[in-house]
Amino acid sequence: MTVYCMDLLHTMASSYRNPCGGSGHEPAHARFVGPGMLTAVVSRDVFASPPVDSILAAIRAVTGPLGCLLIVKVLSLFISSYPGDRLNFGLAAEQAKSEGYKMQMVIVGDDCALPPARGIAGRRGLAGTILVHKVVGAAADAGLSLAAVAAEAKHASEVVGMMGVALSVCTLPGQVTSDRLGPRQMELGLGIHGEPSVAVVELQSVDVVVEHVLKQILSQETQYLPITRGCSVVLLVNGLGATPIMELMITVRKAVPELQLVYGIAVDRVYTGTLMTSLDMAGLSITIMKSDDSILKRLDAPTKALAWPVGSEGNRPPAKFRVPLPPSPSIKDDEIFAPSQELSKQGCILEAAIEASATAIINLKDSLNEWDSKVGDGDCGTTVILEDMKKHYPMDDAARTINEIGATIRRVMGGTSGILYDNLCFPKDVLIVSRGNR
Amino acid sequence: MTVYCMDLLHTMASSYRNPCGGSGHEPAHARFVGPGMLTAVVSRDVFASPPVDSILAAIRAVTGPLGCLLIVKVLSLFISSYPGDRLNFGLAAEQAKSEGYKMQMVIVGDDCALPPARGIAGRRGLAGTILVHKVVGAAADAGLSLAAVAAEAKHASEVVGMMGVALSVCTLPGQVTSDRLGPRQMELGLGIHGEPSVAVVELQSVDVVVEHVLKQILSQETQYLPITRGCSVVLLVNGLGATPIMELMITVRKAVPELQLVYGIAVDRVYTGTLMTSLDMAGLSITIMKSDDSILKRLDAPTKALAWPVGSEGNRPPAKFRVPLPPSPSIKDDEIFAPSQELSKQGCILEAAIEASATAIINLKDSLNEWDSKVGDGDCGTTVILEDMKKHYPMDDAARTINEIGATIRRVMGGTSGILYDNLCFPKDVLIVSRGNR
Repeated sequence: MTVYCMDLLHTMASSYRNPCGGSGHEPAHARFVGPGMLTAVVSRDVFASPPVDSILAAIRAVTGPLGCLLIVKVLSLFISSYPGDRLNFGLAAEQAKSEGYKMQMVIVGDDCALPPARGIAGRRGLAGTILVHKVVGAAADAGLSLAAVAAEAKHASEVVGMMGVALSVCTLPGQVTSDRLGPRQMELGLGIHGEPSVAVVELQSVDVVVEHVLKQILSQETQYLPITRGCSVVLLVNGLGATPIMELMITVRKAVPELQLVYGIAVDRVYTGTLMTSLDMAGLSITIMKSDDSILKRLDAPTKALAWPVGSEGNRPPAKFRVPLPPSPSIKDDEIFAPSQELSKQGCILEAAIEASATAIINLKDSLNEWDSKVGDGDCGTTVILEDMKKHYPMDDAARTINEIGATIRRVMGGTSGILYDNLCFPKDVLIVSRGNR
Repeated sequence: MTVYCMDLLHTMASSYRNPCGGSGHEPAHARFVGPGMLTAVVSRDVFASPPVDSILAAIRAVTGPLGCLLIVKVLSLFISSYPGDRLNFGLAAEQAKSEGYKMQMVIVGDDCALPPARGIAGRRGLAGTILVHKVVGAAADAGLSLAAVAAEAKHASEVVGMMGVALSVCTLPGQVTSDRLGPRQMELGLGIHGEPSVAVVELQSVDVVVEHVLKQILSQETQYLPITRGCSVVLLVNGLGATPIMELMITVRKAVPELQLVYGIAVDRVYTGTLMTSLDMAGLSITIMKSDDSILKRLDAPTKALAWPVGSEGNRPPAKFRVPLPPSPSIKDDEIFAPSQELSKQGCILEAAIEASATAIINLKDSLNEWDSKVGDGDCGTTVILEDMKKHYPMDDAARTINEIGATIRRVMGGTSGILYDNLCFPKDVLIVSRGNR
């Protein structure tokens, strides 16, 4: 069912079933090949267009009696004529038709960064193409006719818009990386082939970037998208190659309430990930697709495509967990401990000993700080121990008191002394696999 | 079943079911939470260790009657005592035991870059930890007892080794990036917390890097791993955050035959991807795990964890496709076309016309080259047209001859004029969804 027609990495891809795009946008598009998404991808060298004969070979290899739909993302930085834009895949489609194949073609142009195209010029196709793939793949999987699949593809491509920002220029293999971007600069409205963007601006915070990008995509002036107050959308925050997932999530944290509160738009699904890249570019793109039941059904349908976020089927509201309270009294900080009116002799000795030890350590603070200059707070919880002691240490029970001191240290050092942990070579991450249910 | 205990991104993660690690190694480890892999992850700020009370809270939240296994990857750059290494998760485990939970703990230290640890010091745990997670998660899913799961974890952690190389230093949020790495330098034996590596060397080709890394991991001198000639392994090539998938695949292309031909080792599975990162570090790590039927069964078991490569269940030999030949005679280049002994009058005129047109275009070569200096080969297939004409154009059939000229141009321009396509704004990528079977 799946075929990879890639010049660059064909052997590896087919040998190890780790298909990868050969054109610098990995995981797009080869890792979206699989049941429920694409059947084949035609790639070439980095950022280069595949020749017509390669496209034809792919069409011949995968097309059955029901036909074949070509999904093309257009690169059109210049105002050029529409027939020119689609020449080589158009040629392939025409040739395939003349060979008896049933062919349809859909062009995706989701870029909202450039001014609206004049006349017959097309917009650039970027990360929104991935959402179109998913819709189309699920529609084809559902057994629809070629015409019906093409109609869903066309609809999806008309309700999707995106805009990107870049913090670096991608490194083209064997070429010197452009220095058009200064150290505190960013590009608005990037392309994914190393071409210059719409504008170079000073670096902005993620909140400012998200506000600007959403304003551009949802502009009522340009009317790129038929999305107004009261509509529902899906949101895709896509990394361009070198952006940590954490930064994508920080973008989501701003984008979701911005859509909900400022634009009055419901957010049905959120996808994050590095889905369509420009080699090792730092930056991200925000894609909005108007959603309805039909589109959600397609997006939620299962797929075995490698790079589609697997956990994202359906609307799963946040799970709520009750984390059990520990049996120890150590976390009942807000309860006022009622100390015995009078401590036993042992209790008095213990209190004096703790006070003396804590004071001794507090007095050593400067030395401790000197010993480890990286730790801002050298008292290691001793101040808090003195407070906790007064509040709720059961001084008459030495064993329990020692336990409580341990709990205090755990709490306080964990809260403030992460760097101390570092320097003491403590383990960095703890992972848990539990057995059984609760 | 799944719980995310992350300080930094907890709200986003639980709200949108896009869990993400909060400690700079995304997608590790939170995106490996899911049925068939981890149950919970305890993270903290970037590169910081979680406090004991957070670990305890996670244990209490997810542990059922069958118990809980902690998988810890150790960071130990300094020679430190073993009890010190495991202090905070060890404390949590002890505390949990005292609360009645059944606890086991396994420590992963797969780093082969540092000299063998002396005495009780531990090795660093890096990307091999992901493979251990998979083995353990599948074992737990299979219904094994805690002791049996822990035994599989221990075995897996003893047969896995890795080494990484970095081409850049990661960008710590809010901090100035270290300039310890020059523009043509790389680090061997990196850590994933921004710490200096084992050695800084001049940039080397991927072939040299792969040879060095495999030599280090499989060294018979250090005997990190019980892997010898005739063994089977699984290979994981992991990107560190800013490495294009393409470069990971190029690494695979060298590593697999190197393992097979130089070391006499069979490669059962190959995993590639950005699975454990150091924020936006450019570089990669190579992990080798000795495989047997039991480990392969665990690795192949299904999981819903987001970041585990979904397409990688089982051993799927490369699919072989027969791409159908086109009905047109245009590709039968090796067949010698038997020209009519004598052309019709129309055929003679056509031949003269084609020859004249082609010669005119060839004479314009210099102007064409000047017009588009990026195109090295300005003849646009005209030379080949003249050759093909002599060989197999049916000159007495004008319509078919024009078709053949088209086929020649498609073939020749596709082969050499990708850059011309670029400048004419041709579409960059063509994707195919086919319907039906063949």
